[in-house]
Amino acid sequence: MINRLMEDIRKKQAPIVVGLDPMLSYVPEKIKKAAFEEFGETPEGAAEAFYRFNCGIVDATCDLVPAYKPQAAMYEQLGLAGMAAFAKTVKYCQEKGAVVIGDVKRGDIGSTSEAYAVGHLGSVEIGGKKFSGFNEDFITVNPYLGSDGIKPFMKVCKEEKKGIFVLVKTSNPSSGELQDRLIDGRPLYEHVGEMVSAWGSELMGDAYSYVGAVVGATYPEMGAVLRKIMPKTLILVPGYGAQGGRGADLVNFFNEDGLGAIVNSSRGIIAAWKQEKYASFGADNYAEAARAAVLDMKEDIGGALAAAGK
Amino acid sequence: MINRLMEDIRKKQAPIVVGLDPMLSYVPEKIKKAAFEEFGETPEGAAEAFYRFNCGIVDATCDLVPAYKPQAAMYEQLGLAGMAAFAKTVKYCQEKGAVVIGDVKRGDIGSTSEAYAVGHLGSVEIGGKKFSGFNEDFITVNPYLGSDGIKPFMKVCKEEKKGIFVLVKTSNPSSGELQDRLIDGRPLYEHVGEMVSAWGSELMGDAYSYVGAVVGATYPEMGAVLRKIMPKTLILVPGYGAQGGRGADLVNFFNEDGLGAIVNSSRGIIAAWKQEKYASFGADNYAEAARAAVLDMKEDIGGALAAAGK
Repeated sequence: MINRLMEDIRKKQAPIVVGLDPMLSYVPEKIKKAAFEEFGETPEGAAEAFYRFNCGIVDATCDLVPAYKPQAAMYEQLGLAGMAAFAKTVKYCQEKGAVVIGDVKRGDIGSTSEAYAVGHLGSVEIGGKKFSGFNEDFITVNPYLGSDGIKPFMKVCKEEKKGIFVLVKTSNPSSGELQDRLIDGRPLYEHVGEMVSAWGSELMGDAYSYVGAVVGATYPEMGAVLRKIMPKTLILVPGYGAQGGRGADLVNFFNEDGLGAIVNSSRGIIAAWKQEKYASFGADNYAEAARAAVLDMKEDIGGALAAAGK
Repeated sequence: MINRLMEDIRKKQAPIVVGLDPMLSYVPEKIKKAAFEEFGETPEGAAEAFYRFNCGIVDATCDLVPAYKPQAAMYEQLGLAGMAAFAKTVKYCQEKGAVVIGDVKRGDIGSTSEAYAVGHLGSVEIGGKKFSGFNEDFITVNPYLGSDGIKPFMKVCKEEKKGIFVLVKTSNPSSGELQDRLIDGRPLYEHVGEMVSAWGSELMGDAYSYVGAVVGATYPEMGAVLRKIMPKTLILVPGYGAQGGRGADLVNFFNEDGLGAIVNSSRGIIAAWKQEKYASFGADNYAEAARAAVLDMKEDIGGALAAAGK
């Protein structure tokens, strides 16, 4: 799956993943009204509205981008109905030919981590038959529990040829409270980067590893250091756009071959129609507004990479 | 909810939480067969088997223990059917008068953490009406992302009078890879303990805070240090029994008043019938075997606390 993702990034010339993190305020009235009429003003109705909204975004952008990243929390807040919409969204993206990164940030130990891995990337065996759960292609995982928490995910990744992105340096303002603390003179995130690089070397694709990393766009200098520590790691970069990152900040995250990073934008794309810049599209054309935002993002990043000679 | 939990621990003289982490191999054939006949040898059948198994455990032990801790991963591996069994299990425990700690180890930032908090502890508002998702009383959360990841949970906890347990020092062998690293001469987990104590002081119950901590039974010396750093924090202690922790190891986690910790046992209780010690109960009496294991655990911990004068 890592080889396919790298190939799709190259073919589409778009190191971009669209974050499908819906909120009801992003969903045009027309979609909400139809879903509520059919399923009631209930979590079921809201979940259906999320799903229909996502389908529109995917239809309008899947020729441009290699991957989508649904954020589990936005669905989980609607309980079971939300999780069903999450599963349907994963499936829809895959049917449209895209790679899906489940942003679930799971992490536990031993058999428990393996259960998460099975639920999201693998399949359970019951009565000799295999059943897959949420069936993403990649998921995000948390490293706080150490190797015991990561290795069970790697085991399932190896079997399924799927991958993980380990949180290294997150994009939020307070990420430094733990991640920047100095250990033996170097920040914690560098140590985690080294662990990711070592884990990754055990599970290589053709050029990049099945074990990726998450490093926030909001910390470009740290991105440069981490890029060197993890040369064969695909870096998933959140924090572009709404959180403040711009194309010029992103060049550090890429290798000299112009690859090695995939940049996420969520709100900046899926809620583009609510921004002044794209307001002329109107609510009915929210998906076309998202397409325009993707094209602008592609140009922003492509231009910055070209200017940096990458 | 923290006041109620502390009161129930005191009343039942049992600082014990039973971990509802089912695996198909723990479920007696009779229960599996009935569930599979009704729902097929499918995730739906397996999830129903988990639920019925859990109900038996809860019926047999709810007069003895104040709380249950279902581990989300074991349910999530069965996809949507598993999550439905998780939700039903939470509800059943609460109907039987128990407090439920959802072991979900979630953690993200800002509005995303808030979405997890809403889904597990709070409610979403749709069309002016409130709907709760999984509705646990407490959940476990991961601190790697810093305050931005914790504060949104605290906001919902304050509104709902519910609580969280923040991972500080986990019970697994490799937990030290990050958690034990020295920062300014002191291990990372002590720094996290101080953060938990500070967060906790903003959200106090009568004697203990709504912000608890997770510290593994397998590290009793660290437990003693953390107990001092977080005097008003209820410590959730995993790792008893199957993972190697014993009653005598646990006294460090308690305050002089004999309170301040709640010890989890999962496999050691719910799969007691598969241990030699309780094998005479037989598969049909798996729940009675669990009850016997709870009584033994209560005696082990109570004896150790008495011997330590706590």
